[in-house]
Amino acid sequence: MVVSEYVRNLGSDHEQVVPVTMFVAVLCLCLVIGHLLEENRCVNESIIAILIGCIAGTIILLLSKGKSSHILTFNEELFFIYLLPPIIFNAGFQVKKKQFFQNFLTIMSFGVIGVFISAIIITAGSWWLFPKLGFVGLTARDYVAVGTIFSSTDTVCTLQVLHQDETPLLYSLVFGEGVVNDATTVVLFNAVQKLDISRIDSRTALHVIGDFFYLFLASTALGITAGLVTSYVLKTLTFGRHSSVREIALMILMAYLSYILAELLQLSGILTVFFCGILMSHYAWHNLSENSRITTRHLFATMSFIAETFIFLFVGMDALDIEMWRMTKLSFGTSMSIYSTLILLILLGRAAFVFPLSVLSNHMNRRAKRTSVITFKHQIIIWWAGLMRGAVSIALAFKQFTYSGVTSDPINATMIIDTIVIVLFSTLVFGFLTKPLISYLIPHHETIKIGQRESSSPREDLNTPLISLEEPTTSNITRAKDSLSMLIERPVCTIHFYWRKFDDAYMRPIFGGPVTSQSEC
Amino acid sequence: MVVSEYVRNLGSDHEQVVPVTMFVAVLCLCLVIGHLLEENRCVNESIIAILIGCIAGTIILLLSKGKSSHILTFNEELFFIYLLPPIIFNAGFQVKKKQFFQNFLTIMSFGVIGVFISAIIITAGSWWLFPKLGFVGLTARDYVAVGTIFSSTDTVCTLQVLHQDETPLLYSLVFGEGVVNDATTVVLFNAVQKLDISRIDSRTALHVIGDFFYLFLASTALGITAGLVTSYVLKTLTFGRHSSVREIALMILMAYLSYILAELLQLSGILTVFFCGILMSHYAWHNLSENSRITTRHLFATMSFIAETFIFLFVGMDALDIEMWRMTKLSFGTSMSIYSTLILLILLGRAAFVFPLSVLSNHMNRRAKRTSVITFKHQIIIWWAGLMRGAVSIALAFKQFTYSGVTSDPINATMIIDTIVIVLFSTLVFGFLTKPLISYLIPHHETIKIGQRESSSPREDLNTPLISLEEPTTSNITRAKDSLSMLIERPVCTIHFYWRKFDDAYMRPIFGGPVTSQSEC
Repeated sequence: MVVSEYVRNLGSDHEQVVPVTMFVAVLCLCLVIGHLLEENRCVNESIIAILIGCIAGTIILLLSKGKSSHILTFNEELFFIYLLPPIIFNAGFQVKKKQFFQNFLTIMSFGVIGVFISAIIITAGSWWLFPKLGFVGLTARDYVAVGTIFSSTDTVCTLQVLHQDETPLLYSLVFGEGVVNDATTVVLFNAVQKLDISRIDSRTALHVIGDFFYLFLASTALGITAGLVTSYVLKTLTFGRHSSVREIALMILMAYLSYILAELLQLSGILTVFFCGILMSHYAWHNLSENSRITTRHLFATMSFIAETFIFLFVGMDALDIEMWRMTKLSFGTSMSIYSTLILLILLGRAAFVFPLSVLSNHMNRRAKRTSVITFKHQIIIWWAGLMRGAVSIALAFKQFTYSGVTSDPINATMIIDTIVIVLFSTLVFGFLTKPLISYLIPHHETIKIGQRESSSPREDLNTPLISLEEPTTSNITRAKDSLSMLIERPVCTIHFYWRKFDDAYMRPIFGGPVTSQSEC
Repeated sequence: MVVSEYVRNLGSDHEQVVPVTMFVAVLCLCLVIGHLLEENRCVNESIIAILIGCIAGTIILLLSKGKSSHILTFNEELFFIYLLPPIIFNAGFQVKKKQFFQNFLTIMSFGVIGVFISAIIITAGSWWLFPKLGFVGLTARDYVAVGTIFSSTDTVCTLQVLHQDETPLLYSLVFGEGVVNDATTVVLFNAVQKLDISRIDSRTALHVIGDFFYLFLASTALGITAGLVTSYVLKTLTFGRHSSVREIALMILMAYLSYILAELLQLSGILTVFFCGILMSHYAWHNLSENSRITTRHLFATMSFIAETFIFLFVGMDALDIEMWRMTKLSFGTSMSIYSTLILLILLGRAAFVFPLSVLSNHMNRRAKRTSVITFKHQIIIWWAGLMRGAVSIALAFKQFTYSGVTSDPINATMIIDTIVIVLFSTLVFGFLTKPLISYLIPHHETIKIGQRESSSPREDLNTPLISLEEPTTSNITRAKDSLSMLIERPVCTIHFYWRKFDDAYMRPIFGGPVTSQSEC
């Protein structure tokens, strides 16, 4: 029997079996190759997955004689409902809470104000330049969407190079901004989609900002509630006897429930599940048996890892979407100039907020007599870390420009292709340059890194407890006494001090976790 | 806004979000209630899940004003591609290999010959009795399918009551038969579906049996290959440095790949993934880091647990499928007599092979001077353990009598309803009686059980190593010397002895696992 016919026969029986098999097989290949090339200086997991995706796409394209390059059409529902939640939840579960909350204001300014600035610059720039380059046909709404789509960053590449223990401030800023950025772009994209662009005035702008803050606060509240409920249930139920299977299942299901409930209530699932992850690692995790703790910690990391690899594979395969390429009507020159314009706008839009906001943050910290200063070298790394565009961009582009992954409009097809090219270019070229750049800017870091590689890369780190982050530093207690002047001068630190007292006195006894007598700032 | 309209609006945006949210929420509820009622004497996890499913179905039915009772249509593809693999893989991963292989012949005779006998009796009985009861319209192929559908057992209920440490022989027989039965019924069902029933002769029967054995051997070989490849890759790659995330991901993905590859090659995925699980626990598991071992062990148990609960919930919800109930044209009396007939045939079909095959097995064991004898009380428990019908029956019935979960034919709808009623009745009534029956037949067991409950129920068991099953019993080495007479008199034992020598000498050094110098039988 001819193989293709055989496969087609099977396809009618089990339409999902063939693509799932191939995807799982390619994923396994990615894992093994990723492990073998881990020591390599330039490539990282994402680049490997994208390249393998491209190769698999080429093979499928050749086998199907130029008909199709992908085995599963990219589906933004698959992405938002099944692939994104584990990644974001794991981010919340693993985040070093102390550092995250200490730099909370800086992270939020990068992640929220930064996205607004970047989106405005990219929207304005593309609105002004695209028609001049000979690419017309986008509506006002499309331009605003383009601004949001290309403001979403993907910091995975950089995080694989940075080390939490060596440059804690830098790591927490890049990591925190990445998560907040994901949430902000998705929330902003949805807020903008509801907008009637033809009648923009100051009230509409206020409306968008109001909507945005409502979504932000409501989503956070839902995430915190879900985390507390899970912690309380686990603490109450496991009193006296543990059932590992149920504990683990309940944590997974409640985390997922928080995400999908947020989506159902048209909130931001990303924010919800992120805060749910933070709360679960702070309370619920301490109510588990020892084996369940180890299992959940590794399980969430593994799920996130598989989802990430899956997404990058998808992006790689989608790059060869031959139908989309055929549909675009633009000449090679025009396409190239559009890609260059977008890259330039991305570089510019990011520079326009990273450097000013860093200076502002340094100024605030100096006033508050905090020692942590974002040096110029660190500012360059933060700027660079957010240049990569990833799966969120692709997913939003598909949401804006296709209907269930399919489009017949050449302009929409062009925008999809543009997004894919930008994602590929930024991940491959910028990603490739990240390791050398960081070694150049933080040379000390590089020399330590080689020796510590085995134990301190973010992925290997899992063998040591991730969540025992309550390193006691008692030196600040005395200084915290003069609370009123403290609150004015060092607001974050003081809030943190009183939060720890409240946490130890009321929250931990109810929701679980070790009660420590030390406070820290 | 009216809630239903709100939900409908959402549904058009994210068609999967609403049902997934409700399902996850109900699953969480099941977990918590299951944990609270764990001490209860009569109900068990499956009964709770089915009842909660029924209640959820009723609520949805009332909310939708009698239109529909389920939020997701039962999809046999969902079942066979996503829910069954983790359950069977976990069974293979957890099985006490020594006992399983010691009783291999008995298990295979129950699981293979038993299914054939039971299927023949149920097919013949229903063919003869259904028209007499006034239910006509089934084709010959349908009757054969009915025989296979109602020969599939669900031993979960019984396994929750039996204890591996107290009645090892009984447990391994019931457990082993359960797995082999799943595989046999699915393989037989597929073999029968390809058959041209109108021209049955002895050659056709031989053809079915030939097909069956080909499927059996090929599937097993594929599973063993997948397990060995994974073990080899893990042993080679992790040499010197472990990466927990990759190790765990690779094990999950390879296990799933073996299942889906078997389905793609039209083999039996169940058998493949079962043997893959056995091989992985025997070799691959030993190549992991300590944390990965704990994680995989609990992870597989959790996945299996979630999938099981999910299936029982589904069955409960499906029971109220109002459209199916409306479609059947039979009177109440006829329906009742059909249900009774099927129950009787199930009781008879199972009795027809459990007692004779047990006697045969005892005879063989006596000749081989083995002490393990299946007492009459144990035979009754084995007979009873296989009376429950579960998700496999439902899935096969949907495969035979619907097209993608929908049917418009009243006869097909009747058969679906019959299957659901039998599954509900057997799980609820027989399942409810299981604990009292076993306490009555093995009273000692019951008294020990209450004391040991915390540590020795199959689910709680997970805290102690599941796979360290190589308890050394050196007493048999000397007896194994006289190998030729041994091979004749005690074939299983002798094969096991030589297998251990081969395993220690060649397999373990290549594929991983601790090399022990002791052998056992």
